[in-house]
Amino acid sequence: MNNARRPRVGHIAFLNCLPIYWGLARSGALLDVDLHRAPPDELSRRLVDGDLDIGPISLVEYLRHADRLLLVPDIAVAADGPVLSVNLVSKTPLAELPASPKVSLTSTSRTGVLLARMLLEQRHGLTPEFATTPPDLASALDGADAAVLIGDEALRVHHDPGGNHVVDLADAWKDWTGLPMVFAVWAVRREYAEAHPGLVKDVHLAFCESVRRCRAEIDEVVASAARWEPFAPAALAEYFDRLQFTLSDRHLDGLREFASRAAGYTDVAPMQEGGPEFFPAGEGTA
Amino acid sequence: MNNARRPRVGHIAFLNCLPIYWGLARSGALLDVDLHRAPPDELSRRLVDGDLDIGPISLVEYLRHADRLLLVPDIAVAADGPVLSVNLVSKTPLAELPASPKVSLTSTSRTGVLLARMLLEQRHGLTPEFATTPPDLASALDGADAAVLIGDEALRVHHDPGGNHVVDLADAWKDWTGLPMVFAVWAVRREYAEAHPGLVKDVHLAFCESVRRCRAEIDEVVASAARWEPFAPAALAEYFDRLQFTLSDRHLDGLREFASRAAGYTDVAPMQEGGPEFFPAGEGTA
Repeated sequence: MNNARRPRVGHIAFLNCLPIYWGLARSGALLDVDLHRAPPDELSRRLVDGDLDIGPISLVEYLRHADRLLLVPDIAVAADGPVLSVNLVSKTPLAELPASPKVSLTSTSRTGVLLARMLLEQRHGLTPEFATTPPDLASALDGADAAVLIGDEALRVHHDPGGNHVVDLADAWKDWTGLPMVFAVWAVRREYAEAHPGLVKDVHLAFCESVRRCRAEIDEVVASAARWEPFAPAALAEYFDRLQFTLSDRHLDGLREFASRAAGYTDVAPMQEGGPEFFPAGEGTA
Repeated sequence: MNNARRPRVGHIAFLNCLPIYWGLARSGALLDVDLHRAPPDELSRRLVDGDLDIGPISLVEYLRHADRLLLVPDIAVAADGPVLSVNLVSKTPLAELPASPKVSLTSTSRTGVLLARMLLEQRHGLTPEFATTPPDLASALDGADAAVLIGDEALRVHHDPGGNHVVDLADAWKDWTGLPMVFAVWAVRREYAEAHPGLVKDVHLAFCESVRRCRAEIDEVVASAARWEPFAPAALAEYFDRLQFTLSDRHLDGLREFASRAAGYTDVAPMQEGGPEFFPAGEGTA
């Protein structure tokens, strides 16, 4: 009797993850996974709680729970310079903000929010007061000095700032550190990786192949996204070009740098010596 | 500004629907739908309530809500003779059952259950008493004369009846009526079909192409299913061969016959004259 169970894999149905899933829906790889679609914060929680086996996880959540997770090599959501969709938007230039600016948060993305906080506090010496608002620019800037926008609304404001000042937070991170910014990684539960290394390897290869295929078929990816997203093909092409889906040594340097600077914040544990710890997907480790 | 929204399409993650979704995960068609996976009864409810646009629906639920739905042409889950996975299982031959047999129901599949009831009452003149039990054979036959099994457990008992008598209900339907049995159809909300005929046509074509591709790649479908399902490749190949995924004129005759015989049961409305009513997917009706 065959008791095999498809690995439970998380899926974020956001525009920035489309390229990572593109090839899965073209190669048939989706037939060998039990795909669970949910917002990023819910996927992070499910992975940590053991209700998912493999999935995307915000960098901050990964750092908080690294003891229970292994990084899946090679794939990430990152940018080496502007990312276009993670922005600090303000009515005045950043240099003219008050010492304790009121900053609206419009997203549950913990990594983007912590990045904004680190830049404002550590780099600019400000002591922002944060408050949560609806995700549209008008609501976010109503009674606030600045707003952290993430996702579609951030991308919209990048193209149409309407007189506001827009700081691309991945670009600001690169100015500050010289390194790429890693927003999300893919992780597997240690327990699952130990019990089912072959299945994890299959999923890892399927994602790598999916990203490769997305790059090879980028015109089709753009045309498909343009059918459903509120952006013109040229804007989508630029966005997919800025986004990086790989986790190179340079990206790992950026990840470690972020972990190091984030460790001062109460709920982010310092990374273990020699970290992060990877699922051993390479040849010879099978 | 592009306000298009992907059609919300239902997906049953049961073995009998794998062939219908096979090609969607190989052609990239999944990228153009917003796929919602749920158990069949929940998908039926969501479609009728307007929380889904297009999806599979049990024949009985379709007949109950035909005023709000249009049939999607060409696709169905059906059998013209044995289906292997919808069985009446009893300790004694059917002819030796008491006049009021105790019959266990193990599934929420309303069509399979109504089929069993019609056969026992209308064809065999029995007055069964039904009770719901867990889906395994031992629980289902504990204190009962017979059990209606549907799905994996039914298929398992077909291969290993363990001394019990197994009546294949699709085969019994064909003996009784000479016609194929249609278990599920695909339907679209009338409102959605009127507002977005082009999108419905795309989804219809994607499903037709998916079934065609499944037939062309049936060895791969069987190998993929055998990785994850508790059945040997030969049993899966036989099952996918028995299952039919088309809705031909003969299947429609079977559907109408079922509707006619089911209309005596309180919650199933008679089919309208000239029904069922289809989404006009053909050429020239665009």
